[in-house]
Amino acid sequence: MKSSQKAQFRKVKILSMGKALASQKLSFGGQARYRLGNGQTILDLAQQAGEQALRAARLTIRDIDCIVCAMATPLQAIPCNGALVHERMAKGLGIPSMDINTTCTSFISALDVLSYMIASGRYNRVLILSGDTASAALNPNQKESYELFSDGATACILARAEEGEDSAILYSSQKTWSEGAHDTEIRGGCGLKPAFCLNEGNQEDYYFDMKGPRILKLCAKKLPSFLEQSFKETGISRRDIRLVIPHQASKALGVIMPRLGFPAGTYIDLVSEYGNLVSASVPFALCKTIEEGKIQRGDLALLLGTAAGLTANLMLLRY
Amino acid sequence: MKSSQKAQFRKVKILSMGKALASQKLSFGGQARYRLGNGQTILDLAQQAGEQALRAARLTIRDIDCIVCAMATPLQAIPCNGALVHERMAKGLGIPSMDINTTCTSFISALDVLSYMIASGRYNRVLILSGDTASAALNPNQKESYELFSDGATACILARAEEGEDSAILYSSQKTWSEGAHDTEIRGGCGLKPAFCLNEGNQEDYYFDMKGPRILKLCAKKLPSFLEQSFKETGISRRDIRLVIPHQASKALGVIMPRLGFPAGTYIDLVSEYGNLVSASVPFALCKTIEEGKIQRGDLALLLGTAAGLTANLMLLRY
Repeated sequence: MKSSQKAQFRKVKILSMGKALASQKLSFGGQARYRLGNGQTILDLAQQAGEQALRAARLTIRDIDCIVCAMATPLQAIPCNGALVHERMAKGLGIPSMDINTTCTSFISALDVLSYMIASGRYNRVLILSGDTASAALNPNQKESYELFSDGATACILARAEEGEDSAILYSSQKTWSEGAHDTEIRGGCGLKPAFCLNEGNQEDYYFDMKGPRILKLCAKKLPSFLEQSFKETGISRRDIRLVIPHQASKALGVIMPRLGFPAGTYIDLVSEYGNLVSASVPFALCKTIEEGKIQRGDLALLLGTAAGLTANLMLLRY
Repeated sequence: MKSSQKAQFRKVKILSMGKALASQKLSFGGQARYRLGNGQTILDLAQQAGEQALRAARLTIRDIDCIVCAMATPLQAIPCNGALVHERMAKGLGIPSMDINTTCTSFISALDVLSYMIASGRYNRVLILSGDTASAALNPNQKESYELFSDGATACILARAEEGEDSAILYSSQKTWSEGAHDTEIRGGCGLKPAFCLNEGNQEDYYFDMKGPRILKLCAKKLPSFLEQSFKETGISRRDIRLVIPHQASKALGVIMPRLGFPAGTYIDLVSEYGNLVSASVPFALCKTIEEGKIQRGDLALLLGTAAGLTANLMLLRY
């Protein structure tokens, strides 16, 4: 690492993770997708993932200093998702909760932001919950997106790394290019176009809408230099990275990653098995990778993703 | 300040602020309220406030390292508010944007979180935009809330304080007590109850719903010890504080503040003039207080607020 980037070094550690999939399993052309079962909500899945992460770290919720929801979509317009998850997991306790949102890369953003609070000593352990129910707004007439998404949730406990431990965030970077602000959206239901404005003529505005080719074009234009700048600033090269954990955006992953210099085998691709889990996509892949032993303590992982915005997030994480 | 609290000290400075009110002025029983004019959106107000803050700091958007939307309510379910404001103010630039949300106290949370990123050197200057359009979801049948809220937006540029400057965040604290998660809510329109579920029998679920007496009871139970703990931890007393900038929650402000040991004159009360501006409430009052010279550089201000959740935020800010 170059000395100029030492300011970014944060001595933090992923203590444990958890994950939960919606119970209904579907298949579209051989690709498995998961959708909420009857009566199931994203809160059930978040709680399940959260409790799994706590058990794995041999902690209880009382050991957590802050609960962060890093989800792409609001569960209610008010209160924030953090308060609703808090009610499930920490009711009666005063643990602070908040939402951090950069849509599909919210998990990387939350890791990034909270790592500074942990490294500085403000918090010791933070529980970061991600997850969305894309199925709540999928448009059956837009096959490309209707057959892509899954519902699920993940949890991650981030803590300070002890002396002598290698775990750290070495570097992270985010960019937003709002030329793509309307390439991925749900226009209706919230402040700009409330539910009351829904009528027979504008139903499409209340569904998830994805302009795939436009997104791919903007990504192809922006991602290579975003990545190269990070490698240049850190002095880290592709060879130093054990595995890339990309956002499982779509089947195009297999096209984009090699173009970014990551051939098959150097990155995790779970699109056919799980689809795009929105904000849970990156942490789900990270959790699975850790569970399967593909990343060991001390290994360098690159978390990389694009989100509605268009936002791109990147993090060099020594697990 | 006690030595144990030095870890919390962040050498940051509010460079400038801006504010914008919706254009339609109403009056309820002599209390002034502001609501969006025809065709006006919260994005117009956020942009106006943001440009005012940039002018006041003699900066352009290119001098900003991160755009943060600290708003209580989503404008669209996707993308995040940050991307939509970015489109207005920073389209074509790669400045990162994100949302930080603790409902009505989102501004304090964003100041809190971003101050760590600035103090560590990750970012030099951050633009924090707050603001909501409560009017999009007010229920004409719930007079208490219908006549309370105003639409408006604020902007704040937070930067590192220079050597020799007194400006700093000395301490901040947040708590969430989710016993109050359903005392302030908009249940419908988003993931848990999408717009498509709206029917004639459940319209109330898509309106803002506030259970005033329940919130007051929970605040009365929790706030005194929340405040005393902060005074105890910092060694700072009420005498050291030049002015308290509370969230302008409701007319009950005049009852609650004296009970918390802040008699009239020691805190800002703008409820009759502007009502509750939701996430813009605290920064609007802070901006006005600074504009009127009631807080000078070096003065200690206490930002204090409660939010749906129930969440409470507190910050000791040396302006």
